[in-house]
Amino acid sequence: MSDLQGLSLLGFGRGAPGPRTFHAQNPATGERLEPSYQATEPADVDRACALASQAFEAYSRALASERAAFLRAIAEGLEGAREPIVERCQAETALPPARLQAELGRTTHQLRLMAAVAEEGSWGDARIDTADPDRKPAPRPDVRSMRRALGPVAVFGSSNFPLAFSVAGGDTASALAAGNTVIVKAHPLHPGTSERVGEVVAASARRCGLPEGTFSLLFDDGFTVGESLVRHPLVQAVGFTGSRAGGEALVRLAASRAQPIPVYAEMGSVNPVVVLPGALRERSRALAEGLHASFTLGVGQFCTNPGVVLIEAGAVGDVFEQHLVELTRSTPVGVMLGARIGAAYRRGLERLRGLGATPLSEGATRADVATGQAALWRTDVPAALAAPGLLEEVFGPSTLLVRYRDAADLERLVRSLDGQLTASVHALPEELPTFGSLLRLLAGKAGRVVINQFPTGVEVNHAMVHGGPFPATSDGRSTSVGTRAIERFSRLVAYQNFPQEALPPELQDANPRALWRVINGGRTPGPVAGIGDRPSG
Amino acid sequence: MSDLQGLSLLGFGRGAPGPRTFHAQNPATGERLEPSYQATEPADVDRACALASQAFEAYSRALASERAAFLRAIAEGLEGAREPIVERCQAETALPPARLQAELGRTTHQLRLMAAVAEEGSWGDARIDTADPDRKPAPRPDVRSMRRALGPVAVFGSSNFPLAFSVAGGDTASALAAGNTVIVKAHPLHPGTSERVGEVVAASARRCGLPEGTFSLLFDDGFTVGESLVRHPLVQAVGFTGSRAGGEALVRLAASRAQPIPVYAEMGSVNPVVVLPGALRERSRALAEGLHASFTLGVGQFCTNPGVVLIEAGAVGDVFEQHLVELTRSTPVGVMLGARIGAAYRRGLERLRGLGATPLSEGATRADVATGQAALWRTDVPAALAAPGLLEEVFGPSTLLVRYRDAADLERLVRSLDGQLTASVHALPEELPTFGSLLRLLAGKAGRVVINQFPTGVEVNHAMVHGGPFPATSDGRSTSVGTRAIERFSRLVAYQNFPQEALPPELQDANPRALWRVINGGRTPGPVAGIGDRPSG
Repeated sequence: MSDLQGLSLLGFGRGAPGPRTFHAQNPATGERLEPSYQATEPADVDRACALASQAFEAYSRALASERAAFLRAIAEGLEGAREPIVERCQAETALPPARLQAELGRTTHQLRLMAAVAEEGSWGDARIDTADPDRKPAPRPDVRSMRRALGPVAVFGSSNFPLAFSVAGGDTASALAAGNTVIVKAHPLHPGTSERVGEVVAASARRCGLPEGTFSLLFDDGFTVGESLVRHPLVQAVGFTGSRAGGEALVRLAASRAQPIPVYAEMGSVNPVVVLPGALRERSRALAEGLHASFTLGVGQFCTNPGVVLIEAGAVGDVFEQHLVELTRSTPVGVMLGARIGAAYRRGLERLRGLGATPLSEGATRADVATGQAALWRTDVPAALAAPGLLEEVFGPSTLLVRYRDAADLERLVRSLDGQLTASVHALPEELPTFGSLLRLLAGKAGRVVINQFPTGVEVNHAMVHGGPFPATSDGRSTSVGTRAIERFSRLVAYQNFPQEALPPELQDANPRALWRVINGGRTPGPVAGIGDRPSG
Repeated sequence: MSDLQGLSLLGFGRGAPGPRTFHAQNPATGERLEPSYQATEPADVDRACALASQAFEAYSRALASERAAFLRAIAEGLEGAREPIVERCQAETALPPARLQAELGRTTHQLRLMAAVAEEGSWGDARIDTADPDRKPAPRPDVRSMRRALGPVAVFGSSNFPLAFSVAGGDTASALAAGNTVIVKAHPLHPGTSERVGEVVAASARRCGLPEGTFSLLFDDGFTVGESLVRHPLVQAVGFTGSRAGGEALVRLAASRAQPIPVYAEMGSVNPVVVLPGALRERSRALAEGLHASFTLGVGQFCTNPGVVLIEAGAVGDVFEQHLVELTRSTPVGVMLGARIGAAYRRGLERLRGLGATPLSEGATRADVATGQAALWRTDVPAALAAPGLLEEVFGPSTLLVRYRDAADLERLVRSLDGQLTASVHALPEELPTFGSLLRLLAGKAGRVVINQFPTGVEVNHAMVHGGPFPATSDGRSTSVGTRAIERFSRLVAYQNFPQEALPPELQDANPRALWRVINGGRTPGPVAGIGDRPSG
């Protein structure tokens, strides 16, 4: 691949140099990584938006097969550039090569799955109600409708998934698959990775004959470019994965526009894990090991990291706790994604300490580099209810054991929880019926409820829901992972009394795309195989 | 039916009397209508929310057939109480009995259609991805998901549909069908109608054995009760139909909560009608008659009322204009829904005049009662672009002709339009290909695009979209009319590794509800007939 240039990708061209620059840093060594990155100039933000808006007029009308070909071209391009991408990404994030290889595989899987979803087409929910000129008292008009793309979408790259939730990540794939154009604001911790991936996307757009501006990539290590994007009148929706403060700021900005727009901000989650007494009695050691592996995975830098664990008080719980202490103490120090992530982790640990959590394993870290040592804390239900800050996310390898006395104590704590991405329960089969109301309570709080497994690891499939009520996300109705994510950057449009040739192909009588459709309320057959990778059954 | 009591319906009981009361008024006569209505006391708002939240735990788990039976019981109850409801409603709104009879029919149709949608069940989008313990590198978990209800929903009755968009109207039917509990804030212009309908809903809930608090009804002629509802921590979503100022205020309130919640506010729309030159040449008289009937229907008190009409400049347009002037001048004065609606209409006309619109037919009204005289205005494209307030809604029988010079002039005006519920085009068949970009532009601005018909009249069917980009609504992704409206008060929830008996029936292997589901990406058959009232095809 060509050398990194450190300039925005504006359509098929590059942004202008300007006064504000920044560098990536190797979090493992502190080394400054070349080249310098240009914070996108305001005129170039405008230009990216104007290009995206012009491109939308053509791209939103591209055939689904053309959008699918684009997504597949990006996937192939990423595979072709695998080595330079992974190499730069490792230097910028300190994530191990095996993890990055897997994440690249996940990224290309997401792109190809979204290509299949776009092509299969039933996500658009095409519906037809035919006319009845003889209806009394008034004739019935012909009404047809489907989901349509929104316009230019601003996507913010995440720190912790430099590939799968960044430049060509989930939101970009969803937005492009639905027919939106995309402007990505790269995460400042991995601009070189972002540029490498962005080059692949831009080259794929060009090779697929798509209009300039279908994709642009902007840089900034501050807030200016992101704020300008969200404020820009041509931008029609926002996807964000990051901190609660960052997400809430974007939600406020979007709401203050003359024309408010949807924001899908995935923010924080403590992903509560409830261990019921029977499971604790029978599987204490395995649970401690599983939990330890889950909360320290990737130096705890997962949005599904279990940060609050509910364990019964008493001797059985004490044994579990002691075992977990030993595992936590023996966890090797990990390098976090960047110095600012490491610093935030240390502040998070200080917050727990300040709120009175008992340190069981301290999470000491060297203050000079981006390292994070696993940390374990204890509190009880009354203390957690009195200091709800204990139940807020610490991003990193830390978890808090909340010891409960009985079922009522447990339910009180669960009722006090905020919205979550996930909630997990470990139980013996015979315990579940007794705790039915607890399960329902958790299903009312979370996007995904898990039984006898750990929440880390988010399958990219058809049923996955990666979302959840506020503050886990800003919009709990949607998912950012899985095939349903294509719906988030769309809205319904109805066409009344349109002649056939003026209708989108999805709504024409001849059904040229062979879609499943709802016609006068009856579901009519399309392709039977669907988009599964296995036969349905 | 029993005498009206003027007190809130809190679950199966009544609210307490208190200091703030108001009366309905007959808009045709100015007569004060008994009884006095009690503005719900703060403690009673709390109680309605607490009851709704408790009831939600059971109601959200009711079988779909039980929710459907409830909706059908409401429909039957409304038919049983048809005469007293229509009589009171006519006194409160001055709407003619035939219109109210039809609106009651529409309301019961909505309820029964939502019952069918709930029962058929595919709205829940049930999906199953089965486990694969042999997958490498990690086993694949079993993940299942579907849409679930949100919790207590606050519904604000509208002024202009005292039955179809009020106490047992569209949002109530959608929310209840999906498994939410509902607290309605009655519109202050028709509290007696609201009480009559509310009694039917509460009695139906009781007869169906549903928990107390599944439904409550609150009164207020000010903002206190509505604001308290939207602020209440137990309320999980809001449905509103009314003014832009009112809708935006609720959106701001909901966003300022500790836990922000979705608000579906349907606000204003001018429903632009574009008449292309060929259609104007060939159908001038019929278009003038159709447009006149559409903008004066129901004294112009429809959210789909065409308030801006684009007509070519020149002699052919002048003839159309002159014909429309004659029709407008000969329109009988109508009684509006209330004195405050009449006053707002007069202010709206003054606004158009102040912004420089040329009055063609003046819309003079008597200032003392709630009457509205049809009004017609003219401007041109440069003037409308210079004073965008001309393109904002006047609620009532007024429309503004915007004369355009050529296609470029027309496109400039259309590009400047805000989001709309509807946009209509009148064209000869041979004109449509030339104006393809105009049609796409309108589809990008509106929830429903109509060709060669008028926008008033919203079918309640499967394909209808009654929504649209801001400011037509606060959330253009959704529809308030049609079977898809059931989705708005729901969110996705995933269940990972659940034993069969802990899953909702919709997600169990045995598929006891015989639903269409997506299994490993393939669509698997459920009932073929669907929910249509006619055979599909």
